[in-house]
Amino acid sequence: MKRRLLLVSNSTLHGSGYLDHCQQHISHFFGKDVKRVLFVPYALHDRHAYTKTARDKFKTLGYEVDGIHEASDPVDAVRKAEGIFIGGGNTFRLLKSLYDNKVVTEIRRRVLEDGVPYMGSSAGTNVATVSINTTNDMPIVYPPSFSAIGLVPFNINPHYLDPDPSSRHMGESREQRIIQYHEEPDTPCVLGLREGSMLLVEGDKATLLGTTKARLFTRGKSSAEYDPGTDLSFLLTHAH
Amino acid sequence: MKRRLLLVSNSTLHGSGYLDHCQQHISHFFGKDVKRVLFVPYALHDRHAYTKTARDKFKTLGYEVDGIHEASDPVDAVRKAEGIFIGGGNTFRLLKSLYDNKVVTEIRRRVLEDGVPYMGSSAGTNVATVSINTTNDMPIVYPPSFSAIGLVPFNINPHYLDPDPSSRHMGESREQRIIQYHEEPDTPCVLGLREGSMLLVEGDKATLLGTTKARLFTRGKSSAEYDPGTDLSFLLTHAH
Repeated sequence: MKRRLLLVSNSTLHGSGYLDHCQQHISHFFGKDVKRVLFVPYALHDRHAYTKTARDKFKTLGYEVDGIHEASDPVDAVRKAEGIFIGGGNTFRLLKSLYDNKVVTEIRRRVLEDGVPYMGSSAGTNVATVSINTTNDMPIVYPPSFSAIGLVPFNINPHYLDPDPSSRHMGESREQRIIQYHEEPDTPCVLGLREGSMLLVEGDKATLLGTTKARLFTRGKSSAEYDPGTDLSFLLTHAH
Repeated sequence: MKRRLLLVSNSTLHGSGYLDHCQQHISHFFGKDVKRVLFVPYALHDRHAYTKTARDKFKTLGYEVDGIHEASDPVDAVRKAEGIFIGGGNTFRLLKSLYDNKVVTEIRRRVLEDGVPYMGSSAGTNVATVSINTTNDMPIVYPPSFSAIGLVPFNINPHYLDPDPSSRHMGESREQRIIQYHEEPDTPCVLGLREGSMLLVEGDKATLLGTTKARLFTRGKSSAEYDPGTDLSFLLTHAH
C-alpha cells in the first residue's frame, strides 16, 4: 500500500506560531517532489482567511497552496492534487462539507491507491480515521454520517488531555469519554494524541513523532502509553 | 401552556453527593401531588445501576422511581407518568435511545399538553431543548437527528465553563465553540448554565436558580451574564 499520512494532533502549540512545532516534519513529509498542496479549509467558517493562513505558512516551507473551495470542481481538484492538507476547526462542519462536496471517496482513492501524501491536523486528523466518533468538537451541524475517510483502521482523539486533579469541574474527563465510546459494540481502538504529538504512516509502518507521549485505548483492555519514536505499526492491522 | 420544567446543569456538584445541590428545588418542583417519577437512564450504559442511584436519592425526597427500561412498553410508561426525570451521561446515546424507543413525541405531548413536570440534568437538560447541537459530549453513537424534544425554543450548554487563563491547552474554549455554532444560519440562542445553576420554567415564566451565573449567547449579538434569581421569560418567546 502506497499510503503516506502525517496526522498531527494540533495546528498550534502553546507559545509558538501556526504549524511551527511540526514544520520540519511537514517539509520531510511532502519532500521535494510535491510543489503544490491542496488545502481543505472546510472546518472553519472563513475559508478565504483560513487558506491565506495556510498559504503563508507553506510558502515559508517552499510549497504553493491551492484552496479546494477556489476550484470550480472540488472532486477534480482532488483528482489532480500532488498533496493534500486538511486543516483543523470544527470536525462536524468539516465532515459535512466533505460529504456535501462529494470528495470523501476521491480523497480515499487518491491516498490509498495513488499514494498522494495526506496531512491532517486536529479535525483534519479526525476525518482521516474510521469515524469522527472520538472528536472533542461541538456538534454544530449534522453530517450525513459519522463515518470518515478511513485511511487507517482505528480512531484518533486529537488534543488528548490528561485529567486535571485540581479541577472542581464535574464534566467527564477525556479518558471517561473514550471509555464510554468503548462501551458501544464493535468500536475500534482510539489513539489519544496529546498536543505536540503526531503520527507518521508510510505504507504499513506507523511511527509516533513529536514531543509528547500518546495513550492508546483498546476496547476491553487497559490503556497504554507510548513514547515519541515508538513503532505503532500494529495499529494498521485490522485486528486492532 | 401548562409546561413545567426543571433544567439542571449538572447532577453532582464538586464536594457533594448526587443531586444534593438541587434537592430542595426538586422537592418543590415535583411537590406533593407527584408520588412516582419516571426515570430515563438511557444516557448511561448500565441502566440498572443508574436507576438504583436515582431511586435511592428520590426515596430520600419521598418519591418512588420507575425506570423506563423496566417497562414492557416505554411509550405507555410515558403516557402514564406523573413526572419525568431524564438523567445525565452521554447526550448522543440518550437522544438515539429516545428515538429508538419512539418516546420523543410522547414526552413532548405529555409535558406541553398534559403539564407533566419534566426534570432534566446535564444530557437530560440538553434533550429538552431545540437540539443537541450545543452538547459537550463525545459523539459515541449516531442519532437519527440532532433535533431534540423541543420543550423550549432555545438551546442550553450545560456544565458551561469559563476559559482558564493559565491553561496551555489549545483546544477551543466553550465560548469559541458556541460562537462557531452561531456562525451557522438560523441557530437559536444558547444559555450557558454553569455547574450549580438551573432553569425553572413554569408556563411562560422562566427563572434562573442555583448559586452560579448563566451566560446567554445570541447569534449576532454580544453575550450577556445573568445572576441567579433573574427572570429569563423572554427566552420563551420565539423571537429568541
